[in-house]
Amino acid sequence: MKKINLKDKLSKFSDQWSPKVIAEMNDYQFKLVKIEGEFVWHEHEETDEAFIVIEGSMAIEFDDGVVELSEGEMFVVSKGVRHRPRADSECKVMLVEPRGVVNTGSAKSDFLAPNDDWV
Amino acid sequence: MKKINLKDKLSKFSDQWSPKVIAEMNDYQFKLVKIEGEFVWHEHEETDEAFIVIEGSMAIEFDDGVVELSEGEMFVVSKGVRHRPRADSECKVMLVEPRGVVNTGSAKSDFLAPNDDWV
Repeated sequence: MKKINLKDKLSKFSDQWSPKVIAEMNDYQFKLVKIEGEFVWHEHEETDEAFIVIEGSMAIEFDDGVVELSEGEMFVVSKGVRHRPRADSECKVMLVEPRGVVNTGSAKSDFLAPNDDWV
Repeated sequence: MKKINLKDKLSKFSDQWSPKVIAEMNDYQFKLVKIEGEFVWHEHEETDEAFIVIEGSMAIEFDDGVVELSEGEMFVVSKGVRHRPRADSECKVMLVEPRGVVNTGSAKSDFLAPNDDWV
């Protein structure tokens, strides 16, 4: 019966682009990630992926446009859609997606982070 | 490619205890709800249910305890666990749960709200 405080959890890690699991709901996970700079273009062939900005601002680039997100804004990237997250300065984001989703999706990249990494 | 602003969405309705869908991810929905007072005791036999406090504070009572949540805090109520949300003054909450979940779960109650009610 332990509640989860997002800012407390964010204070427990500093590495960027490496999502940390904070909670599970059925076979889904809530993750926190700190991002800065440009990620790798990738897609998740099996699932949608939700981005919720907790602090700062970020953008998600698509082949046909870009979505700019600030604190208190969210976006769901549809399954199979190629995208690239980026942030001019560090942005703190909550991701919601099924357990097992790899951060780099189908891309081969040095951005590959450990999966199921709890904080 | 439309982003979702939580405060904008919250400004579009005023009724309490009636969750409004703002986004879908696979077969899951993100909902916003305004709560005040005590809800009905209930459980969701088929699914976990995530509560994320957007503004204000609330509590979730259980048969064996209570969890107090403030802005930026979250809790996942496990499947089948009897609970009662309450808030001393209006609290704005995001719920994440599978499409089709009814707010009152297995309880028979006047709190029953329309399902799949988008804002």
